[in-house]
Amino acid sequence: MKIVVVGATGTIGKAVVGKLTDAGHTIVTASRKGADVTLDMTSPESIRAMYEELGHIDALVVAAGAAYFGPLETMTPEQNQQSIDGKLKGQMNLVLLGLDYVNDGGSFTLVTGIMMDDPIKQGASAAMVNGGIRAFVKSAAIEMPRGIRINSVSPNVLEESWEKYKDFFVGFNPVPAEKVAQAFVKSVSGGQTGQNYEVY
Amino acid sequence: MKIVVVGATGTIGKAVVGKLTDAGHTIVTASRKGADVTLDMTSPESIRAMYEELGHIDALVVAAGAAYFGPLETMTPEQNQQSIDGKLKGQMNLVLLGLDYVNDGGSFTLVTGIMMDDPIKQGASAAMVNGGIRAFVKSAAIEMPRGIRINSVSPNVLEESWEKYKDFFVGFNPVPAEKVAQAFVKSVSGGQTGQNYEVY
Repeated sequence: MKIVVVGATGTIGKAVVGKLTDAGHTIVTASRKGADVTLDMTSPESIRAMYEELGHIDALVVAAGAAYFGPLETMTPEQNQQSIDGKLKGQMNLVLLGLDYVNDGGSFTLVTGIMMDDPIKQGASAAMVNGGIRAFVKSAAIEMPRGIRINSVSPNVLEESWEKYKDFFVGFNPVPAEKVAQAFVKSVSGGQTGQNYEVY
Repeated sequence: MKIVVVGATGTIGKAVVGKLTDAGHTIVTASRKGADVTLDMTSPESIRAMYEELGHIDALVVAAGAAYFGPLETMTPEQNQQSIDGKLKGQMNLVLLGLDYVNDGGSFTLVTGIMMDDPIKQGASAAMVNGGIRAFVKSAAIEMPRGIRINSVSPNVLEESWEKYKDFFVGFNPVPAEKVAQAFVKSVSGGQTGQNYEVY
């Protein structure tokens, strides 16, 4: 399969690329820089340009998307907008603008996150995005044409990021990126649709 | 209590106003037109002006918020934006910009909807908003200052709207607005926070 991995240079993205490559798939990496295709997922124009450049694909995987973290009491509409433009609209627009480019029986796999189920302080804006994407995936799945599937993966905090983020995730049990990547592989290669795979 | 009801002229809003008035509360209605205060919830400026006009309040209830309905295959980023600007950002901004105006021990009650849990065709954009608001409420609840609470109410399709919408909700069991209004009353007058009351 020809599979686009958005956010391929991140910790999860690298693990996903590794597994899909090992399985014999042709991977096209997409990122702001340092990837096969340059993509700014906050820009519909950039998304359109990527699809026009790549033509038809079998699957799109997203392991990227910026969200705002900060105290609720001081959060401004503008700060919240960073999450909306990044992880929320970015992922939705990759689906809305990409549908015609995905081959029959292909798939989209988006990313959510544990904070929507197990909230942390400063995480309300990111939680909103995660919950929004999960609900979009569940609903969009029943309208996908031509056997196209759509799922999301909801990672816990990563072992690889634990030192950096452990003060925000006290009491959480971090998971290895390798385990999160398996859920992406299941979404791409399995038969399910409308699912949110919790890797908690 | 001094309670602002946004969307007070709608079917649910009217029922909520009736119950809260019967319970002896002072209600301020807010809507695009025909209410005590004129409010365009898609505009942060309009939200700020409302709070400046009203001063301190005990509770804010939202029974309004536009979302886009239409087939996924033809949905554009611009159509999806209607849901984001309306029911998603509108409600979040009422919270973010209103926190300082809510008295100690007060509350916010937002509105979601059954489509996030039980999807219907043409409902993917609205489902996204509902899921986003539910996750925001759950997460924001753990950061609310001064004992302020926040919940959401998730209505099924209403009996009062059944004739109009029944073709979109085949097999659903509509509920009376009266029953939905009870969940808003529970949120305002009860002690719970971070909940999404499903009136299914």
